[in-house]
Amino acid sequence: MTLQGWSLPQSPTGTAALVPPPPWHFSGEALGIDFITEPDAVAAVLPSGIEPSGDGSASFVFCDWSSSAERDARVAADPARGQYREAYVTVYGRLDGRNIARVPYIWVDNDLSFARGLIQGFPKKAGSIAISRAVRVGRGGPRLERGAVFAGHVSSLGRRLASGSVTLNEPADGYLPRALRLPVWHTRLVPDLAGGEPLVYDLARNLVTDFALADVWRGQAELAFQDSPFEELAALLPREITGGFRCGVAFTIVGAETRTLGSGHPGR
Amino acid sequence: MTLQGWSLPQSPTGTAALVPPPPWHFSGEALGIDFITEPDAVAAVLPSGIEPSGDGSASFVFCDWSSSAERDARVAADPARGQYREAYVTVYGRLDGRNIARVPYIWVDNDLSFARGLIQGFPKKAGSIAISRAVRVGRGGPRLERGAVFAGHVSSLGRRLASGSVTLNEPADGYLPRALRLPVWHTRLVPDLAGGEPLVYDLARNLVTDFALADVWRGQAELAFQDSPFEELAALLPREITGGFRCGVAFTIVGAETRTLGSGHPGR
Amino acid sequence: MTLQGWSLPQSPTGTAALVPPPPWHFSGEALGIDFITEPDAVAAVLPSGIEPSGDGSASFVFCDWSSSAERDARVAADPARGQYREAYVTVYGRLDGRNIARVPYIWVDNDLSFARGLIQGFPKKAGSIAISRAVRVGRGGPRLERGAVFAGHVSSLGRRLASGSVTLNEPADGYLPRALRLPVWHTRLVPDLAGGEPLVYDLARNLVTDFALADVWRGQAELAFQDSPFEELAALLPREITGGFRCGVAFTIVGAETRTLGSGHPGR
Amino acid sequence: MTLQGWSLPQSPTGTAALVPPPPWHFSGEALGIDFITEPDAVAAVLPSGIEPSGDGSASFVFCDWSSSAERDARVAADPARGQYREAYVTVYGRLDGRNIARVPYIWVDNDLSFARGLIQGFPKKAGSIAISRAVRVGRGGPRLERGAVFAGHVSSLGRRLASGSVTLNEPADGYLPRALRLPVWHTRLVPDLAGGEPLVYDLARNLVTDFALADVWRGQAELAFQDSPFEELAALLPREITGGFRCGVAFTIVGAETRTLGSGHPGR
Repeated sequence: MTLQGWSLPQSPTGTAALVPPPPWHFSGEALGIDFITEPDAVAAVLPSGIEPSGDGSASFVFCDWSSSAERDARVAADPARGQYREAYVTVYGRLDGRNIARVPYIWVDNDLSFARGLIQGFPKKAGSIAISRAVRVGRGGPRLERGAVFAGHVSSLGRRLASGSVTLNEPADGYLPRALRLPVWHTRLVPDLAGGEPLVYDLARNLVTDFALADVWRGQAELAFQDSPFEELAALLPREITGGFRCGVAFTIVGAETRTLGSGHPGR
Repeated sequence: MTLQGWSLPQSPTGTAALVPPPPWHFSGEALGIDFITEPDAVAAVLPSGIEPSGDGSASFVFCDWSSSAERDARVAADPARGQYREAYVTVYGRLDGRNIARVPYIWVDNDLSFARGLIQGFPKKAGSIAISRAVRVGRGGPRLERGAVFAGHVSSLGRRLASGSVTLNEPADGYLPRALRLPVWHTRLVPDLAGGEPLVYDLARNLVTDFALADVWRGQAELAFQDSPFEELAALLPREITGGFRCGVAFTIVGAETRTLGSGHPGR
Repeated sequence: MTLQGWSLPQSPTGTAALVPPPPWHFSGEALGIDFITEPDAVAAVLPSGIEPSGDGSASFVFCDWSSSAERDARVAADPARGQYREAYVTVYGRLDGRNIARVPYIWVDNDLSFARGLIQGFPKKAGSIAISRAVRVGRGGPRLERGAVFAGHVSSLGRRLASGSVTLNEPADGYLPRALRLPVWHTRLVPDLAGGEPLVYDLARNLVTDFALADVWRGQAELAFQDSPFEELAALLPREITGGFRCGVAFTIVGAETRTLGSGHPGR
Repeated sequence: MTLQGWSLPQSPTGTAALVPPPPWHFSGEALGIDFITEPDAVAAVLPSGIEPSGDGSASFVFCDWSSSAERDARVAADPARGQYREAYVTVYGRLDGRNIARVPYIWVDNDLSFARGLIQGFPKKAGSIAISRAVRVGRGGPRLERGAVFAGHVSSLGRRLASGSVTLNEPADGYLPRALRLPVWHTRLVPDLAGGEPLVYDLARNLVTDFALADVWRGQAELAFQDSPFEELAALLPREITGGFRCGVAFTIVGAETRTLGSGHPGR
C-alpha cells in the first residue's frame, strides 16, 4: 500500500494530511510596531552565518490571516481551517552582504499554521492573539481614520507576552514596512529522537510571489513585553519605539531556498 | 460598604464588573441565509403572545462583531474583550399587530457577550463560530466581488450545529435584510434557585439607535442543520433556501422596552 | 404555545435549556491556599449587611469539577458538558452573628457553570484555569505523597491573575478546610436594561446536602496575584500565607435561602 | 553566536525551545475501545513494510495525560504546559515477523504534545477531546465501580469525529490492553518546501521504559465515528465492538529506534 499525503498523517487517499503542498496563498491585516532594543540582544538571537544589523532595530507584528492552498480547496472553504492569528518579533541582519530579516519567536492559534510554519522553519508555538479589527460602520471598533487606535496582544500558557498599539496618523500609500519587505531567513530544525545530530538543520527562506499591500497607514505606537519562564522575548526589551503601521498584506509561498548552516547543532 | 458595578461582580471601585451599563455600540460583518421551514416548527418556538407569521420563514445569521461601551473605554481598547462571533436563528411573527422577529437559539464565543445577552433576553450558549472574512488583497480569502463564497459554521460541545454559505451575486445598496430590520422580542427569564416562580419572566426588546449598513451584497445561499442531544435547532429544518446576504452592520443599544408575559412559567 | 425549560433558551420540549433545575451534584478536586491580606481590603469587598471577620483572612481555591444534574442525564453523560475548572477567592465575615464566607471573584471555563453560577449569585467570568492532577503511576505528574507539588493558575483575557501551589506535607483526615466549610453568601444581581432598579438584587446562599471530603492533605503553600485593568483581585494582596490543602470534595445543591439587601443598588 | 535548544525556537539560553530533549515521562488515564473493522480498511492505512494483521482488529483510545521532562522542570511545574488530552485510533500488523501497532490518526489539545508527537512520527492534529474523569466522592461523575459509565469524544474544526464509552464490569488486575502493549511504529515525515524528496521519511518507534498500569477495569463498550471532509477515520468504521478498558498508564520515552522505508514518497 502506498499512503498518500504531502505531510502527516498520510492516508489512503491523502485527504487526511494536515498540510497540503504549496503554493499557499495568504491575505491578512498586519499591525506592526518598529522599535529599538539592545544591539547585543539582537545579535544573541541570530544564528551563526547571519551578521547583526548593529543598530538594535526590530519589529513586532500582529497578523489576522486568511489562508488558502492552491491544490486543496478545503482550506479556503472552511474558515476554521484557513483563518488564524499570529504575533511575532522580527530582527534584522545581513546574510551574504544582503539585508535580511529573522523571526526568533512567533505564536499562532491554529494547527495548520503551526505545522505549515515548522515546515518553513518558523519557530511557532501556540498562543492566544487578539487584534483590533477595522470596522466600516458604527462605533463598535476603530475605523481606518486618523486618530483611530488599533491594539494587539499575545499570551501563551495564560501569560501575557506582548501588548502593542498603533494610533493611525495618515495613509501611507507606497510605504512598504521593513518587517514585511525583507526576506526572512529561518532555521529548519528537526531533532532526532534516535539521538545524535538533528535530522534537518539548515537555513531556509520562502520563495514568495504576488506580494501586495493595501490601505497602508502609519502612526505612533506603543509596545511592551512581559516576562515568562518559557520565553526569552523579554530580552528584546523595547528601548525606543520608532513607529507603527497597519495595512492589508498578501502573498503566495511557492517554495523555499535553503543553505547549509556553518556550525553544528548544540545537541542535547 | 457600598459595592459598585452595574453587573456582577460588584467591587470596591466597580472596575471588576463584567458588563458595563448601556449604551453599547456594535459594529460587525453579518452573513445571513433566509429560508423556509415548517410553519408549525416556527409556531412551536414562539412564546404565547407572539403570533406566528404563518409562512415558515426564518433566517440564520453568522456575525463577526466588534463592540464597545460608551462608559467603559476598556471594551474597545482590548480586542479580546470587545470582539466576538455569534450565530443565531431568527423566526418571524406578530406582536400587537406589528411584524417582529424572535431569536429562539443563539451561540457566542465570549463571556461579555454571553452575560450582556442574558441581560437582554438573548438565550445565549457558548459555541465555536467560524466565518469567512473579506480580504482586500491576495487570494487567502474571498473578496467582496461577484462569485465570492462566504461560509460560516457553528458548533457547541464539539458538535457541528449549523453550516451555511452565501455566493455573492451583486451589491444591493439600500437592501435591508429582514433579519436585521425587525425588532427582536426576547424572553427575559431568571430562574429562582429558592424555588417557585422565576425572579424575572417577561418579554423585552432592545431600544436601538444609529442603525447602519455598509457593503450590502445579496447572493445564492446554502444552509444545513445537524442534530445534537442538547439542541432543538434541527426542528427548524430548512425546506427551501430563499436567499443570502452579506453586509457590514452597526447599531447602538441604549435600553429596553418590556411587556409582561401572558402565561405563567412552566416551572420545574 | 407554552415553551419549556427551567432556564433560557426555552424550547418546545425543554431539551435546549442551558441549565437544568436542581438538584445538581458536584465532585471535584480542590487545591486551596489560605492567606492573610489587609483587613480593609476584605471589608471593601463585602456588601452591606455582612460584617468583616476583621483579621484579613482569605483563601484562594482552584477546583477541577465533574458535575451532573439529577433531572438531566446528559450533563453526566457528556464530559464536555459537566466538567469544568474554576478558580476563586474567598473572604470571611459574619451575617446574623454567624461565620460565613463570601466569594467576591471567580473565573470558570464552561458556559453551563457560568450560567448556573449567575443563578446562584456567583459572580463568574470566563477564565483559563490549569491545575495539577494527581497521578496514580509514573512520573508525569505529582502523586498524593509527601513532598509532591500541586500548582494552579488562572488567567482571563490573556492575563495571568493568580498563581499558587501547595507542597503536600501530610494526610489530614478529618480536617475540613474553612473555605469549603462555611456557607457562602452571594449577591444575586440582575440589571434591568429598561432602566431603574435591578430586577433582582438580594443575598442568597445555596442549600447543600451530601457534603463529603476525601484524601485530604495539608501542606506549605505559595500564592501570587497579578494586576489586570479588568479586575480588583490584586487589592486582596497576600501578606502572609498560612497554609494549603488539597482534597476531593463533593456536595449536592438542592436550592437556596435568600435575604433582602439592606441598601439600594448604586445604579448606573 | 551559537543558539541553544533541542527544538525550535532556538534562543540564547535555550529557555524558549518548545520541546525539551528526552527522557519524557507520561502518566495518564486511558479509556479504550477494541473493535473490528474491515480488514481492507486496516490494510489501507498501513505503510509498505508493515503487514496487516488480517483480522480487522483495531482500538480507539482517549487519554488524559500529565507529562514531564527529565531535563526541564517547567513541564511538570506548570499544569498548562504538561497536561493534555488526546484521542487516537490504533490498528495492528506485523513488522519483521513481530506483532506491532500503528496509529494512523491522532488528535491532541496542546502544542507541546503536538510538536513532541511530530518528532516521534505521531501524525497529530489539533482537536477538542473530552473524557469522563473518575471521582472519589459524590455523584458529579463516575467512580471506579461496576456499572459506572466513562465516555469520551473528539472533535476537530467543530466537527465530532468519534464518540465512545465504556461501562465498567470488573477490575482486571494483570490485564494489559493490546493497544497499550504493542510497540507502535510511526512514519516520520518532514516535507521539503524547497521541493523534491522529503527531508525525513522513515519508520520509527519509541524506546520506552518504566511502563506501568494501575486500576485496570474492563467492560462493555460503544464506539461511533462521524465523517469529516478533512479526515479518513470513518473508513475504519466499527463493525463489531469487542470490549473496553479503563486504566491508569505510565511510561517514559528515552529515545527511538528507526528503519528506512522501502518505497519512496508519493511526492506532491
